[in-house]
Amino acid sequence: MKTIKPLRDKKNTAVLLIHCPDRQGILATVTEFMNKNSGNILYLDQHVDRQEKIFYMRVEWELDNFAIPAEKIGEYFDTLIGKPLQMNWRIYFSDDVPRMALFVSKMPHALFDILGRYTSGEWDVEIPIIISNHETLKPVAERFGIPFYYFPVTRENKEEQEAAEMKLMKENNIDFVVLARYMQVLSENFVKQFPNRIINIHHSFLPAFAGAKPYHAAHERGVKIIGATSHYVTSELDAGPIIGQDVTRCSHVDTIQNLIRKGRDLEKIVLSQAVYKHLQRKILVYKNRTVVFN
Amino acid sequence: MKTIKPLRDKKNTAVLLIHCPDRQGILATVTEFMNKNSGNILYLDQHVDRQEKIFYMRVEWELDNFAIPAEKIGEYFDTLIGKPLQMNWRIYFSDDVPRMALFVSKMPHALFDILGRYTSGEWDVEIPIIISNHETLKPVAERFGIPFYYFPVTRENKEEQEAAEMKLMKENNIDFVVLARYMQVLSENFVKQFPNRIINIHHSFLPAFAGAKPYHAAHERGVKIIGATSHYVTSELDAGPIIGQDVTRCSHVDTIQNLIRKGRDLEKIVLSQAVYKHLQRKILVYKNRTVVFN
Amino acid sequence: MKTIKPLRDKKNTAVLLIHCPDRQGILATVTEFMNKNSGNILYLDQHVDRQEKIFYMRVEWELDNFAIPAEKIGEYFDTLIGKPLQMNWRIYFSDDVPRMALFVSKMPHALFDILGRYTSGEWDVEIPIIISNHETLKPVAERFGIPFYYFPVTRENKEEQEAAEMKLMKENNIDFVVLARYMQVLSENFVKQFPNRIINIHHSFLPAFAGAKPYHAAHERGVKIIGATSHYVTSELDAGPIIGQDVTRCSHVDTIQNLIRKGRDLEKIVLSQAVYKHLQRKILVYKNRTVVFN
Amino acid sequence: MKTIKPLRDKKNTAVLLIHCPDRQGILATVTEFMNKNSGNILYLDQHVDRQEKIFYMRVEWELDNFAIPAEKIGEYFDTLIGKPLQMNWRIYFSDDVPRMALFVSKMPHALFDILGRYTSGEWDVEIPIIISNHETLKPVAERFGIPFYYFPVTRENKEEQEAAEMKLMKENNIDFVVLARYMQVLSENFVKQFPNRIINIHHSFLPAFAGAKPYHAAHERGVKIIGATSHYVTSELDAGPIIGQDVTRCSHVDTIQNLIRKGRDLEKIVLSQAVYKHLQRKILVYKNRTVVFN
Repeated sequence: MKTIKPLRDKKNTAVLLIHCPDRQGILATVTEFMNKNSGNILYLDQHVDRQEKIFYMRVEWELDNFAIPAEKIGEYFDTLIGKPLQMNWRIYFSDDVPRMALFVSKMPHALFDILGRYTSGEWDVEIPIIISNHETLKPVAERFGIPFYYFPVTRENKEEQEAAEMKLMKENNIDFVVLARYMQVLSENFVKQFPNRIINIHHSFLPAFAGAKPYHAAHERGVKIIGATSHYVTSELDAGPIIGQDVTRCSHVDTIQNLIRKGRDLEKIVLSQAVYKHLQRKILVYKNRTVVFN
Repeated sequence: MKTIKPLRDKKNTAVLLIHCPDRQGILATVTEFMNKNSGNILYLDQHVDRQEKIFYMRVEWELDNFAIPAEKIGEYFDTLIGKPLQMNWRIYFSDDVPRMALFVSKMPHALFDILGRYTSGEWDVEIPIIISNHETLKPVAERFGIPFYYFPVTRENKEEQEAAEMKLMKENNIDFVVLARYMQVLSENFVKQFPNRIINIHHSFLPAFAGAKPYHAAHERGVKIIGATSHYVTSELDAGPIIGQDVTRCSHVDTIQNLIRKGRDLEKIVLSQAVYKHLQRKILVYKNRTVVFN
Repeated sequence: MKTIKPLRDKKNTAVLLIHCPDRQGILATVTEFMNKNSGNILYLDQHVDRQEKIFYMRVEWELDNFAIPAEKIGEYFDTLIGKPLQMNWRIYFSDDVPRMALFVSKMPHALFDILGRYTSGEWDVEIPIIISNHETLKPVAERFGIPFYYFPVTRENKEEQEAAEMKLMKENNIDFVVLARYMQVLSENFVKQFPNRIINIHHSFLPAFAGAKPYHAAHERGVKIIGATSHYVTSELDAGPIIGQDVTRCSHVDTIQNLIRKGRDLEKIVLSQAVYKHLQRKILVYKNRTVVFN
Repeated sequence: MKTIKPLRDKKNTAVLLIHCPDRQGILATVTEFMNKNSGNILYLDQHVDRQEKIFYMRVEWELDNFAIPAEKIGEYFDTLIGKPLQMNWRIYFSDDVPRMALFVSKMPHALFDILGRYTSGEWDVEIPIIISNHETLKPVAERFGIPFYYFPVTRENKEEQEAAEMKLMKENNIDFVVLARYMQVLSENFVKQFPNRIINIHHSFLPAFAGAKPYHAAHERGVKIIGATSHYVTSELDAGPIIGQDVTRCSHVDTIQNLIRKGRDLEKIVLSQAVYKHLQRKILVYKNRTVVFN
């Protein structure tokens, strides 16, 4: 149902994400690589963590007149700059549209938000599959014309169900996973297959109220602000690198049901904004913290 | 496509909205009306504008054991309390599900947000018709199974097109109108038919940047925060009573396109939250200002 | 140094704070008490916690023509209404200016904020004493002309020092205590003397990062928003009823020092706003949660 | 009264602010200038406005081992880089503590906020003079030990009073001016003497409610959010380049007096944060818009 997707004349670009030990001249060295080879730089963001002495950089440049062919850029960059400067780097091309697997359970708000954006062409992404441990949202997937796969997970069958999910994802060339209020904890083995490529939304202002029923806990504690947190999933529950957070005010007037209702609006926006940043290749992870460029 | 709407066991209640000149004892008088007739009060909100000397009240009570039959409450209340205290009042029953006409143009984000909530059963509302001056969003309406009516409006045909829209709305027993980024100014005549019952979203922090292209104007002015404003439509453009506002930060980094993208998330949430308040019968209007109860 | 305090012609009013088991007609009964005795109600706020079935109310009325003399109001109210309705109530008179003891350590920002407001006459309060476990801020107290008492607290002398502080507070008829970044944990015995009358500011978004060094912990966790929380002190550290919270955005750019700097602005404002609500008698506490009226 | 100012061992650094037509390699050229001459770069921020094709940069580096003596840096930089690349640049040294003239009228909140920070050593600044068109705040200035000058301004004497103020400022080597709720419009001539060096706080969310009595206007319009805006003063009232903005929620409950009270907290924080950014040399101005680095 990508019926209303606008035509865009997308530029043919590459994005390089880098982090490495800080030293003098990295920025000059990297930008010279683009400049000397006729690569017009469109965006450049850099950050130095002075305490950890780590240099972070994102650079996006046009490939049209770039002297090095796309498939060779990685090799050249690594040989000339990456290895000598002990860089941890990754390159992405605007040609390669990332492929997302969307995991849901019973709550539809984040799913609708993502499919609305997808259908509108807000994002450069393909969503070939929706996976769920409940059949509740199958009709939504069908209306948007996206194949829906039902994998009911129990304590007993978790391992084999995850294996089947993984197989399905491999067949669909999935690049990253979005948990849109998927109410199952993924196994450590599953998580390891997608390092910093599983985005979750937790319905609290982490690290407050990690785990189950955060709105109940927030109500019990009598907080005056509730929040939502998007993060990459790691093997430790709700403890992965935080991508984004947002909050909204509440008061003694709000019942738990009200908090849940208000929270939904936070959750879906915070999750979608994290997906957008991920798609823009604007997130770097180092030591369980993110650098998220503007 | 109201496929995932949860069953609710909704209470049978009435809501009374009141404003009148302030004087001693109004609150006691009104609550006594419910109490004496075995009407269990569920929610009560009141506000006194000391400057204008106006009393505002919203009271919701259970009808199940209420001594006065629903169809007689208005008459009794007016005779016993409303008239003597010069009240401007209105009563609503939880049985009557309000019927919304949804006006759109080309931008889908607010439409998706509303239809997602509608389909999920977040709101007690019926949306029998979607009206548009463009055909762009017809596929969206179709996928959600809602009749879509195309009324291309020009300067020449505006009067007759609005007459046709009005006729269609009458046939569908429309109670109120939501302009989900409908990019046409409604005529004074149209607006008069729906006093405080047309909700619009303006894509700026009103009264800043009223009128066309607010994101361009915001960028030009170099503001550090952008906003969105929901309001009831009056005959004066972007000058009706404000229901809700929200903002988000921006900076020199943000291009106009970025502001538009960030603004979409504000617009859809601010509009939907206004619709929710309207459906909850929590908004009173007096002298071009709203009282919006929690 | 209350040199710039504006003259106000303050109304002679009483404030009644009530909470009690909810039942029909409380509101009518209480307001009738004022109305029948010629007490013009200026403000009325009420809230019903439907889950706990508790009714909360704040009512402020003019005493000038009130039929019952001020010193008899409590007795009459308790006999006629309070006892029969099992009310927990408290009455305050605008004549009685509350007396605050201000506890500080080394950081001046919250102290300056409070003294600036005090000197400007923003608040109806007297601050007869400042108490500290360090001499650092003595010059500030002196410049504002407020007696400064130095009580260096060690593990060994804590009991006797607190006893001395308590004695000093008794001599100064202290009504409530404000901990303006006082970096000592008060003993359970001390806290018990001032139930819901010790206001603390914690430099995090509670319950996240309770305890020491919250900005360090926030930086370590990589949060994207930091906060501050005002609360009444109870015997459990950082676990008392929350009065107010506010947050500000941060990012990978922010060092711990930056978080501390940004946090200062939050802390002082959140603390002062809590003090204001307390002085306005707008806070009720029930089961470790607050009702804070607007 | 800089009694509680902490000792800092401040690094000996230079800050270079640049804007110029964008072209390839500027960043590399500038950073090479520091690197080649043994200048350790501490912070580097850059931004390219793709639409206007303007490059902005702030770079701060250590002078201790820098090969070019401080007093020669400007000349060398201009000859080697600035002129060839048509740069608009400015250099600042951490040794030179900026000198602020503080203008006030009758309201003390922003004054107290600034003096509290000044006295606490939060900022690297000298405030040798406070200037006012009223005597109201003289006692505050005296308590903080800062000379207070009273220049009552009328329509008739404005020109000569401003001349006298200017003379006083020249004698005190004033670098920049902060209007802390100074309720007089400065003449065009005065403003021209301090281009982008007069910081004002306007008590609204500009461009909404420019001019007098913004809280009254905000109340009248029934907005749900109020704001404050810091900006550089230009000859057009409230129309200069915006430095920062912040907002807070309000509702029908808020009287004009409440808005004024809530607004004070916004105003003082927004103003002080603008002063901090200015002191950090993090603001660039181009075409009536600011670039404010993090």
